[in-house]
Amino acid sequence: MSSPLKIIGSGHYLPRKIFTAQELDRKLDLSEGTSFRTSGVRQRHYVQEDETQSFMGARAIMAALENAHLSYESLDLILCASGSSEQTIPCTAALIQRELGKSESGTPCFDINSTCLSFVSAMDLAASLLTTRRYRKIAIVSTEIASVGLNYSHLESASLFGDGAAAFIVERTPAGENSALHFAHMETFSSGAEYCKIEGGGTKLHPGKTDWKNVDHEKFLFTMDGRRVFREVLSRVPVFIEHALKPHNKKLTDFDWIIPHQASASGMQLVKKKLEIPTEKFVDILENHGNMIAASIPLALHLKIQDGTIRRGQSVCLFGTSAGLSIGMVTLEY
Amino acid sequence: MSSPLKIIGSGHYLPRKIFTAQELDRKLDLSEGTSFRTSGVRQRHYVQEDETQSFMGARAIMAALENAHLSYESLDLILCASGSSEQTIPCTAALIQRELGKSESGTPCFDINSTCLSFVSAMDLAASLLTTRRYRKIAIVSTEIASVGLNYSHLESASLFGDGAAAFIVERTPAGENSALHFAHMETFSSGAEYCKIEGGGTKLHPGKTDWKNVDHEKFLFTMDGRRVFREVLSRVPVFIEHALKPHNKKLTDFDWIIPHQASASGMQLVKKKLEIPTEKFVDILENHGNMIAASIPLALHLKIQDGTIRRGQSVCLFGTSAGLSIGMVTLEY
Repeated sequence: MSSPLKIIGSGHYLPRKIFTAQELDRKLDLSEGTSFRTSGVRQRHYVQEDETQSFMGARAIMAALENAHLSYESLDLILCASGSSEQTIPCTAALIQRELGKSESGTPCFDINSTCLSFVSAMDLAASLLTTRRYRKIAIVSTEIASVGLNYSHLESASLFGDGAAAFIVERTPAGENSALHFAHMETFSSGAEYCKIEGGGTKLHPGKTDWKNVDHEKFLFTMDGRRVFREVLSRVPVFIEHALKPHNKKLTDFDWIIPHQASASGMQLVKKKLEIPTEKFVDILENHGNMIAASIPLALHLKIQDGTIRRGQSVCLFGTSAGLSIGMVTLEY
Repeated sequence: MSSPLKIIGSGHYLPRKIFTAQELDRKLDLSEGTSFRTSGVRQRHYVQEDETQSFMGARAIMAALENAHLSYESLDLILCASGSSEQTIPCTAALIQRELGKSESGTPCFDINSTCLSFVSAMDLAASLLTTRRYRKIAIVSTEIASVGLNYSHLESASLFGDGAAAFIVERTPAGENSALHFAHMETFSSGAEYCKIEGGGTKLHPGKTDWKNVDHEKFLFTMDGRRVFREVLSRVPVFIEHALKPHNKKLTDFDWIIPHQASASGMQLVKKKLEIPTEKFVDILENHGNMIAASIPLALHLKIQDGTIRRGQSVCLFGTSAGLSIGMVTLEY
């Protein structure tokens, strides 16, 4: 069942500081080329002190509003779709509203979190919220700081992630136009909940209650069992694709563009091969940005719309995996 | 515009350990009666080691499924609506799925967060998701551990909070029945973002990057500027109520039951008086549970349905404020 969702603007913010694969090699005393060979990431952006999640998220929304030729006042919801959060309380969306200088506006703000799939889940939700006319114009923003949680003794993940934000403005498709969210599908297999995690920081291992002297510091950093993630993803994804597409009589090759989560170079190549996705349809921005958690998919979509690659009327499949372990997809006509 | 949402079951879990106002007085070396006078909370539940958020959330969902005479397999979404989270990654809903022993089920899982209003936001979303038939049966669960983040040098908040979980199963209202979510409204004023917060724990003050020896430990604990919250809420709530109810030609007294967020005894009394809500319509469970963050409203709704106070056909207004600062409402026919 198709939903009347139209993308009317998008924007992004990337931190000023670029951190290259060579710099990482030097930082970790590795021979040149090691970190690039490990992750396929040539450079990524890392925030500096003043570049908070709300700062980046606000700038991405401002750029998206400008792109849509809209003022802030036309928004009636700010939905922050990120795997990381700026503070424990309140939600990041409220901090973004403040950073936008609109703290008296009353615009409702809340967060949605399915880790790397948060943007995909938010688009899925927005489709229902626009269909029922609960909201008319929604800003969806993914703003992520991965760099603070990296474990540099684990090169596979430390060489992979980057920071940044991307935002989209979506509205109910005007009568007579064809922009739509065609269908969405998501599956979660918590048997994989251990494969990608930051165990600490929540109520289970709370920083306010921790014995700070004796704590295992690494529990507050990202850990990834890359081999098990690959195995799990490769075995689950073909079944997922069948569940997602078959009811709609679609094949992956029917879409003009496939935008995968920029999980890792090897993961993306394995999935592309396994699903027989033609290279020319497969959007890959990993090399210059790294894995930006939930901001990867919207940044890739935004960049390809901005440079004219993705055009009105074309079909786009957003698709990825996330910690949980979840697999998710939404399909759009842009 | 009314949405076809029907509550078909609910359940809860409260931690085994009860912590009384007298115990708190003794712990903090206060004269007997001080903490109860401060907060109006006579007792609350505090988790012990094995009672994680996912453990409590899973038990609340199991109770709700039993109450609805349904098996897990009939659910097609687990939506965790909590202000706290168990780990930084992945989302709590996935951990609840695992705790339910259903880690191979594929049931989609994600989290929504608007702090104390998370359950209200989730009901609002669920109404659209059921209307569009995106999902057929949704488990909404609020599971909260406040006790790990309390600052005992600040009696006003330390005497207020409790732990626990409540879950609801909602489905699309069958033809010929009247259960519905009538309307929803939310406003966020981030000018109040500083009044209730846990500044640390996210990417701004990340426990994985903190200088653990020199950190200000209190930044990882809850702080509340009670006086400013009261002032802000009292000035904003009457305008909010007008925005929420006027388009629907409703007054607060039109509802059979008003279930406010159990924010604090004095806050609830001030709001009740200001809005002229009759005591007999006003649901207050604070004394025995404390403020359970997002679990307060669903626990109150659940207990009043379970004991027969709220009956089919009656109208219910869920209403509250949260850190952000947000104000939210959904109105239901049960």
